[in-house]
Amino acid sequence: MMVAPARIRLGMVGGGEDAFIGAVHRMAARLDDRFVFIAGALSSSPEKAKRSGLALGLDPARSYGTYAEMFASEKQRSDGIEVVSIVTPNASHAAIAIAALEAGVHVICDKPLCTTSEQAARIARAVKASGKRFAVTYNYTGYPMVREARALVKNGAIGRVRTVQVEYAQEWLSTPLESSGQKQAAWRTDPAQSGAGGAIGDIGTHAFNIAEFITGETVSELLADLQSFVPGRRLDDNAQILLRFASGSRGSLWASQVAPGNENALRIRVFGESGALTWAQEDPNELIVAKLGELPRRMTRGSGLATAAAQRVTRIPGGHPEGYLEAFATIYSEVAQAIRAEGPADSGITFPGIVEGIRGVSFIEAAIRSAAANGTWTPVAACSV
Amino acid sequence: MMVAPARIRLGMVGGGEDAFIGAVHRMAARLDDRFVFIAGALSSSPEKAKRSGLALGLDPARSYGTYAEMFASEKQRSDGIEVVSIVTPNASHAAIAIAALEAGVHVICDKPLCTTSEQAARIARAVKASGKRFAVTYNYTGYPMVREARALVKNGAIGRVRTVQVEYAQEWLSTPLESSGQKQAAWRTDPAQSGAGGAIGDIGTHAFNIAEFITGETVSELLADLQSFVPGRRLDDNAQILLRFASGSRGSLWASQVAPGNENALRIRVFGESGALTWAQEDPNELIVAKLGELPRRMTRGSGLATAAAQRVTRIPGGHPEGYLEAFATIYSEVAQAIRAEGPADSGITFPGIVEGIRGVSFIEAAIRSAAANGTWTPVAACSV
Amino acid sequence: MMVAPARIRLGMVGGGEDAFIGAVHRMAARLDDRFVFIAGALSSSPEKAKRSGLALGLDPARSYGTYAEMFASEKQRSDGIEVVSIVTPNASHAAIAIAALEAGVHVICDKPLCTTSEQAARIARAVKASGKRFAVTYNYTGYPMVREARALVKNGAIGRVRTVQVEYAQEWLSTPLESSGQKQAAWRTDPAQSGAGGAIGDIGTHAFNIAEFITGETVSELLADLQSFVPGRRLDDNAQILLRFASGSRGSLWASQVAPGNENALRIRVFGESGALTWAQEDPNELIVAKLGELPRRMTRGSGLATAAAQRVTRIPGGHPEGYLEAFATIYSEVAQAIRAEGPADSGITFPGIVEGIRGVSFIEAAIRSAAANGTWTPVAACSV
Amino acid sequence: MMVAPARIRLGMVGGGEDAFIGAVHRMAARLDDRFVFIAGALSSSPEKAKRSGLALGLDPARSYGTYAEMFASEKQRSDGIEVVSIVTPNASHAAIAIAALEAGVHVICDKPLCTTSEQAARIARAVKASGKRFAVTYNYTGYPMVREARALVKNGAIGRVRTVQVEYAQEWLSTPLESSGQKQAAWRTDPAQSGAGGAIGDIGTHAFNIAEFITGETVSELLADLQSFVPGRRLDDNAQILLRFASGSRGSLWASQVAPGNENALRIRVFGESGALTWAQEDPNELIVAKLGELPRRMTRGSGLATAAAQRVTRIPGGHPEGYLEAFATIYSEVAQAIRAEGPADSGITFPGIVEGIRGVSFIEAAIRSAAANGTWTPVAACSV
Repeated sequence: MMVAPARIRLGMVGGGEDAFIGAVHRMAARLDDRFVFIAGALSSSPEKAKRSGLALGLDPARSYGTYAEMFASEKQRSDGIEVVSIVTPNASHAAIAIAALEAGVHVICDKPLCTTSEQAARIARAVKASGKRFAVTYNYTGYPMVREARALVKNGAIGRVRTVQVEYAQEWLSTPLESSGQKQAAWRTDPAQSGAGGAIGDIGTHAFNIAEFITGETVSELLADLQSFVPGRRLDDNAQILLRFASGSRGSLWASQVAPGNENALRIRVFGESGALTWAQEDPNELIVAKLGELPRRMTRGSGLATAAAQRVTRIPGGHPEGYLEAFATIYSEVAQAIRAEGPADSGITFPGIVEGIRGVSFIEAAIRSAAANGTWTPVAACSV
Repeated sequence: MMVAPARIRLGMVGGGEDAFIGAVHRMAARLDDRFVFIAGALSSSPEKAKRSGLALGLDPARSYGTYAEMFASEKQRSDGIEVVSIVTPNASHAAIAIAALEAGVHVICDKPLCTTSEQAARIARAVKASGKRFAVTYNYTGYPMVREARALVKNGAIGRVRTVQVEYAQEWLSTPLESSGQKQAAWRTDPAQSGAGGAIGDIGTHAFNIAEFITGETVSELLADLQSFVPGRRLDDNAQILLRFASGSRGSLWASQVAPGNENALRIRVFGESGALTWAQEDPNELIVAKLGELPRRMTRGSGLATAAAQRVTRIPGGHPEGYLEAFATIYSEVAQAIRAEGPADSGITFPGIVEGIRGVSFIEAAIRSAAANGTWTPVAACSV
Repeated sequence: MMVAPARIRLGMVGGGEDAFIGAVHRMAARLDDRFVFIAGALSSSPEKAKRSGLALGLDPARSYGTYAEMFASEKQRSDGIEVVSIVTPNASHAAIAIAALEAGVHVICDKPLCTTSEQAARIARAVKASGKRFAVTYNYTGYPMVREARALVKNGAIGRVRTVQVEYAQEWLSTPLESSGQKQAAWRTDPAQSGAGGAIGDIGTHAFNIAEFITGETVSELLADLQSFVPGRRLDDNAQILLRFASGSRGSLWASQVAPGNENALRIRVFGESGALTWAQEDPNELIVAKLGELPRRMTRGSGLATAAAQRVTRIPGGHPEGYLEAFATIYSEVAQAIRAEGPADSGITFPGIVEGIRGVSFIEAAIRSAAANGTWTPVAACSV
Repeated sequence: MMVAPARIRLGMVGGGEDAFIGAVHRMAARLDDRFVFIAGALSSSPEKAKRSGLALGLDPARSYGTYAEMFASEKQRSDGIEVVSIVTPNASHAAIAIAALEAGVHVICDKPLCTTSEQAARIARAVKASGKRFAVTYNYTGYPMVREARALVKNGAIGRVRTVQVEYAQEWLSTPLESSGQKQAAWRTDPAQSGAGGAIGDIGTHAFNIAEFITGETVSELLADLQSFVPGRRLDDNAQILLRFASGSRGSLWASQVAPGNENALRIRVFGESGALTWAQEDPNELIVAKLGELPRRMTRGSGLATAAAQRVTRIPGGHPEGYLEAFATIYSEVAQAIRAEGPADSGITFPGIVEGIRGVSFIEAAIRSAAANGTWTPVAACSV
């Protein structure tokens, strides 16, 4: 008789008042009932951290002022946290992640992994040394139709890939919003908190990740033209990038935060020798499948004609849209499955991990290097993990 | 300092193995962290009920064989359930709901409310007598863009309503699926479990509800042509219905379970003297707003230009789709707010309740009566609650 | 060796200054180079008729003050007109058409055919007596994807038809435009010129025609609720109609001229036992084909996977949209083929003729009768031609 | 009193049997009744030329075996051709165009203008010397919504342009179709007939042209990565190109003939400081207009809210789609207006001419040069005409 597995004890660093992504992580953790959120260091301001803990219903004794305090204290408890979500600005990820791993805690880290490849290498070593699970929330890979796309490419449904067109367009930074005190805009355009990448780091890495995820191929080099269109902005807000894959496939990646009319328009098209796939994040329950010599078809999430890869991450019937939170929850639930090592049912687990995290950082660094050289083909460092 | 309110203790009747909607209710209850699911009578088979409870992680002592047992036992506990979700076939709703109310438990009942207006009246009396909260999960009213549409009509954005075109189309019963032993198909096409309405009851009531919800108007009479296209089917699987509102507005309602190419295609268009609104459940994050003499606009859920009515039920930024579960969760969270009577923040609470439940039953009955008379205008009974 | 056939000599009644549809007919006649426009009685005002003829480059001697004059004079010439286009308000169609037929001239008549079934019967007798070709410009049947839809139904691609949802929505008469002196609005809302049907006559007949054309079935009875929403309007501007086909299929037809946000939104969906078709006039180069158990496919006009019925009326490759004028031109070119009786190539000719014209008038009369009886099922007179 | 201007006498070189674009030019010339097609040298095979002339109804005496013969003979006639359409493979354009101009005949030349900038310069000199009108059929600029987009950019509706995303994707050359003897594929992949550009010449030039047309800006340099994915293909079939405009705007251009699922998917998005425009050729009657701080609007061709620039090239009301042939016809009709120098009505004439033709050739040459240097920023030669 099947018995529900015990819920995994979850802590969080960051994600207090005024934060956006922390709440997303918490909803994602709750949706499939695999986690119980019990501890946090929810702000770099201890006072704000405490206040946020109360508002979220944490036991005050487990709402910590700093992450160091949290790891130290939780480690002493038999019911201490098993996994931590890191939802702070990018520049602090490395230190927190390494502290968590050293405390024997699994990690779910927001993207990008960190701000330099040197940090990335240190995290990778800590992961290896700890034997713990490590996820990076390239959450769009949790969408069933993204899983479907990956499975179709792998199954040869479109033949060998020739070219990939991927883009992620937003409008929200079309004006100097960071000057207005808006918190999200402020840290994301601040090199000290965000790292050297602006649009390329915040959303370009998502586009890069999904291109590699769906094609199953590796970008070997890229060529970038980066702009900071908004006067006074210190990081790029628009990036035009060409891609070359190790396989010989080509592609184009456009990331922009100054594209009026776009909210979170992540869109990918993969063209192969015998077919093509089109998927857009804002309409995530459909995947257009075109095969040469046939009429294009509209695959929907719950159609029953999807591959096992899509069906195993689908919760509700077709025509009842799943959205961003469900895709995010899938990453969480796969981490849970991996932590509990649940056996055969685990076979399709594909949450993004340290490798994908490192690739994202390499992408950012290559783009900046290429642009600095006025657009030259620049290798994206291979990941040795 | 804001402190998280205590979670509401939730029980469930139905929703065990093989069920579909029970899992939806549980996810909806979890999403916003307002409920804790602690007891259930999850199946009409006591053995299956127990097994389902274990699989869902219920305390075995609180996984009951019957709902009567559950209400009796929970009533004795200081930490007994405060609210119950009823997710059984329609014919059993009335008895369970009344038992719950008599046990002092708030009720969240799946739709349609019940199978006869006589039952509906009894439930209404029990609600009144108990002073408890009562919700009927016409869940599509939880979508932010449906709230937006209602607010726009109310604000006069499209002028006086002239005509409403609403439809709910599915394909899943295009063949005699009920003969194959598929459980969902079996009970939904069985008058003994489903009541006298087939498509009109299962999905037509949603269409009817959303038309009244968005327009804020009342259908006074209807004219129906009902079909059972699939040989041997005992309930309607296609319904063509004309509507007349008390205000003089007109409309058309089409509900079909034999419409190939449609999954859960609930779609409504409202035309007024000076503008029109279009919304579709399968693309729920947008609302098309057309005003005479202006270009049609595409409102998106998180655009910042929405009314307060939409913004208060929005969780994440625009371009990151919210879906079916989020809309469903909004109904749950509003019930939680109502139960806790949280004050000013409650002002926009609009979850569907006993009145909407009764209207749905009246709609079914009027449609059947009209069709039986070969299509005559038939009053939809006014709700006296 | 193929030699171009001589162009057919074309005259026109109506279509002078301020007219809309006359110019459409002339472009349609020119597109495929099968006609030469050489004579006209372009207005009921002789002076305006002459002026219009000059502006259009007619030989002044063949720009007549009245249609009677034109038929009499052209009959005397060896190079007289062979066919006439009638593009006047509806009430005058019958007299002109009969005069043309009696003068031995083929007729292309705008829709609806005329304003009463008595007129329709007289035209039908004149057609029979003359042996001449007679077309009614239900022009939407000229779209390749409409031809495709008809062929697919006929070939059994969607199985026996169960229900048809058809609608034609416009916004242009949402206000009392006829009071402003706008010529198109004035005659179309004037019973003396337009006949007893408003929206049902002007656009409802198109919807009715395309439903019968695509399904190949006959509507046996209908039930109508008609409204004149704009104060002071003398004809219906919104119509909610239920359909029953002789085959047992059902359907719904909505025609509205008070639907903000709609320009010429003719849309039809046909649902059969094993599949469904969706087509919309504003996006006419695609046809959605859904089959049970398969993913819905998007057929495009030039895809090469279309039936012969679609390919023979296609001019240019897929992805280069054909539009309204091309569909209209197809009707003209098929009339030319019929006049020249060109043999095997004629096999697919399906332009709408006297039968379709009569059916349209019967539809209008049935709708008015049904609505006058507060919505009762009313037979649509069978066509005995 | 307005009198119809005399029709312009038109000849054609190329466009006989098996040709595609010749028939398009003839339909375009007919649609608005400004031309009469009276002479041709319709094939490089004199026999085929004669046969094609007969099939098209040309006077056999004016169906010539060679273009030289045609120009010589027509020059002698008082009713000789006034303008010639050149619809031959690219490599022959220059010689024919120069011969036409020297014979005093206006020219409408298919794109690209020719195959080298040296040829282009010679044509430009001949145009200047002749004083004749010269058009290059970058026909997509004839679409009303493209005119609208250009007018909106000019009027400041989206502020200063920041980035342009333009693409033209086709699938038809995904396989080595040229090996099958298909005539269109054969010449378009043959450097001797097509010139040095494959996809960049055939469709990339359209994308380039429309980007400069809509923005009113000039591309100063580009960076290209070109591929020939199909084994054995001698010209590029996929091109990933980055753009820099003289104004500082950036952009990306993708042209592909190996993109399954695409027919003629020309699509452009222009992003400015305060708004953005989106247009797609396969859905040409709409233009999405997004302004910061407002909801995106859907402009339709006949909405009445368009600028004069769009309205003057619109033939029929909104909701009745105009297509490819109408846009093409607009180029022809503007050439007619220019030839007849019709005065005030001419004010909006914007058909593409020698300058646009030269730019297209410069674009091809720059792309090939850049790709040959493994992707370096390469100037697009400024046009000195």
